[in-house]
Amino acid sequence: MISKISHLGIAVKDLKSAAETYRKLLQSEPSEMEFVAEQKVNVVKFKIGESTIELLEGTSPDSPISKFIEKRGEGIHHIAYESDDVRTDLKRLDENGFELINKEPRTGSDNMLIAFVNPKSVGSVLTEICQH
Amino acid sequence: MISKISHLGIAVKDLKSAAETYRKLLQSEPSEMEFVAEQKVNVVKFKIGESTIELLEGTSPDSPISKFIEKRGEGIHHIAYESDDVRTDLKRLDENGFELINKEPRTGSDNMLIAFVNPKSVGSVLTEICQH
Repeated sequence: MISKISHLGIAVKDLKSAAETYRKLLQSEPSEMEFVAEQKVNVVKFKIGESTIELLEGTSPDSPISKFIEKRGEGIHHIAYESDDVRTDLKRLDENGFELINKEPRTGSDNMLIAFVNPKSVGSVLTEICQH
Repeated sequence: MISKISHLGIAVKDLKSAAETYRKLLQSEPSEMEFVAEQKVNVVKFKIGESTIELLEGTSPDSPISKFIEKRGEGIHHIAYESDDVRTDLKRLDENGFELINKEPRTGSDNMLIAFVNPKSVGSVLTEICQH
């Protein structure tokens, strides 16, 4: 069952400068920077209500975030929804005709279980289902 | 003071089909369709936790949503943050160097006070501040 927006992933070119912008926008202090090796990204997070804004900076040209920026420019990269049982939600989505990028969840930052739904199935919006 | 993500505006070509997709994705029933004359859009909303997903379909080629889709394709159009005092937040953002599209709030759907921040000031993300 999906209960809320877990986070929005926003692709940025310069993490330090973007973090300063969001610090001023949201009047909130960012998390410590985290490096996610599998995605080749540096991440800084801002808590806002029950959700989180994640600023994502690629650390290599072949990072998915660097490729996204090269193709589309900076901007919102994905929406992640919080599930209380990601495997059950993936099965449900699969049965409802959604094309899954990950049929089995994998481990993301903060030891979350995460899985992506193909943007083709969701009006070009890259959609993540995650479970803390 | 900004307290939460109020809503995400998602630009779609076919509102009926997109609403069916999100109904299945979120296991949630949409609101009745609403026409916002000023923006020339039809809107359908899904409550998800403390936030809302707004699906936006232009009703005319000169609707901002139709123009967005023509330029960038379907996808996330804007993030709206909830403020308890939109005028104070606009003043604060102005003083912090953010370029405001609306220096004074205007009235949006549900009689919200809304104002937009220029995406150039927020890493290419069209950002709305709103107050219910």
